[in-house]
Amino acid sequence: MRISELSAASGVPLPSIKYYLREDLLPAGTPTSANQASYGEDHVRRLKLIRALIDVGGLSVATAREVLQAIDADRMPLAQVFGIAQRAVSQSELFSSSDSAVGTARIDALVEHRGWAVSEGNPGRAAAANVVDACISTGHPELLALIDEYAAAAETVAAADLDAVARQPNVAAMAETVVAGTVLGDALFAGLRRIAQEHITSQRFPHSPPGTPAEPRAASSPRASRDSSDPAPHASR
Amino acid sequence: MRISELSAASGVPLPSIKYYLREDLLPAGTPTSANQASYGEDHVRRLKLIRALIDVGGLSVATAREVLQAIDADRMPLAQVFGIAQRAVSQSELFSSSDSAVGTARIDALVEHRGWAVSEGNPGRAAAANVVDACISTGHPELLALIDEYAAAAETVAAADLDAVARQPNVAAMAETVVAGTVLGDALFAGLRRIAQEHITSQRFPHSPPGTPAEPRAASSPRASRDSSDPAPHASR
Repeated sequence: MRISELSAASGVPLPSIKYYLREDLLPAGTPTSANQASYGEDHVRRLKLIRALIDVGGLSVATAREVLQAIDADRMPLAQVFGIAQRAVSQSELFSSSDSAVGTARIDALVEHRGWAVSEGNPGRAAAANVVDACISTGHPELLALIDEYAAAAETVAAADLDAVARQPNVAAMAETVVAGTVLGDALFAGLRRIAQEHITSQRFPHSPPGTPAEPRAASSPRASRDSSDPAPHASR
Repeated sequence: MRISELSAASGVPLPSIKYYLREDLLPAGTPTSANQASYGEDHVRRLKLIRALIDVGGLSVATAREVLQAIDADRMPLAQVFGIAQRAVSQSELFSSSDSAVGTARIDALVEHRGWAVSEGNPGRAAAANVVDACISTGHPELLALIDEYAAAAETVAAADLDAVARQPNVAAMAETVVAGTVLGDALFAGLRRIAQEHITSQRFPHSPPGTPAEPRAASSPRASRDSSDPAPHASR
C-alpha cells in the first residue's frame, strides 16, 4: 500500500508517519520509484505499537526507539526484552535506584522468602524499596504488613502476563506483547484495585459512624450532610 | 514544642512548615505569646502525612488540602474518605472519564460478573475502560484475556488494603491509612509486579538463544558491575 493508505489503515496521520520514518521508529517501505515506497501489514502493526508506547506508555521518542530495537533484535533473549521494556516504562523517580538500606533489606528478604530469581538492576526492586521507605518515613509502618499479600498477587498477575506472552506465535509477537503488557498492565491493575476497594469498603463498612446520617453510597450522598460552612466543594462526592 | 523543634522532630525544613501553615495544610499551634506557638505530636504526624501526599503521591497543595480536610471531617463515612483519596491520587488522564463504549461495556460486564458494588464515578472504572480501549486500538486484544486474573488479584490486594484500615484504632487513623495506602499501594504493586515478571520469565524462558552470553542472577553480583557513568545503562543487562 502507499503511504496515504498506510495512514488510513493505521489511523495515524501522514505527518506523524513521516516523523516516525525519519526518527527510525518505523522501517522504510519497499521503494517503488524515486520518491515512493510500498508498505505492508507489518507497518500497520508497528504504527499501532508506536502509538501504544508513546500515547499510552508516555515514552519519549528516544525510549520508544530503544524498545523497538529490542523487539527487532530477534536473537535477544526474551528476558532481556522484558528488562528493556520494564525500564522504558519505569522512568519515573520511583523506579530509580533506592538509597534506602531499610527498604532494600526488606525487599531482599521478601525476594529471598519467595525464592524469586531477580537481578540487581530490576527497576521494581528500587521502586518497592522506595515505597517501604516511604511507609516508614510518613509514619505508616502498618502498611508494611501488606507486602506479602501484595507479592502473592503480583506473582499471580505476572504469571498471567507471561501466559499471554507464551500464547504468541513467534518471538517478535512475544516481544510486542511484553512491551504492550508492561505498559498497559500497571494502569489496568490500578483501575481494578480502585473498583475492588470501593466494593470491599461498602461490604465491611456498610454503616456510617455513630452520629452521621447513613450514606450507603457516597456518590449519591446528599450535600446537606456536610457542614455548610465547609469551604471545600471538592468534598461533595 | 516550638516550631524549630517541630522541624527537627519531623525532618521538614522550617520554611516548608511555615508554607504548610499558611496554606492551611497544617493546623496552627497553640499560641504561647504574640508571635510564638506550641506544637505537639499531632503536628509531627500531620507533617509526615503532608510529605507523603506531596512527595510520594505527587499531589498538588490544593489536592492535598482537600484530602486532609476529608481526614479531619471525622463525621465523614469512611467510604467517602476513600473516594476522595482515590480521586486525589487518580488525577492523571488515564483516570478521567472514558468515552470508550467498548471498554466501558467490558468493565461493566466484569463488575457484574464479580458481583462488585461500585459507584458510577469510581475513577478505576474509567481507567480500566481506557486500558481495554488501548489494548484494542494498539492491536493487542490478547491482553484482554488477562482481565479476569487481574481482577481477582486486585480483589485480594483491596481486601488486604481494607485489613490494614480495619486494624487502625480510630476513624482518624483509618482515614490516614486509606490515604497513605492508596498513594503507596499502586507503586508497591507496580514494583513487585516487575520483580515477579523477571522471576517468572527466567523460569519459563530459561535458555538464552545461541550467541548471547549467559547472565547469571545479578542479585549476588557486586555493585561494581553497574557502571553509573554508562550513558546507556538500559542496554547493559
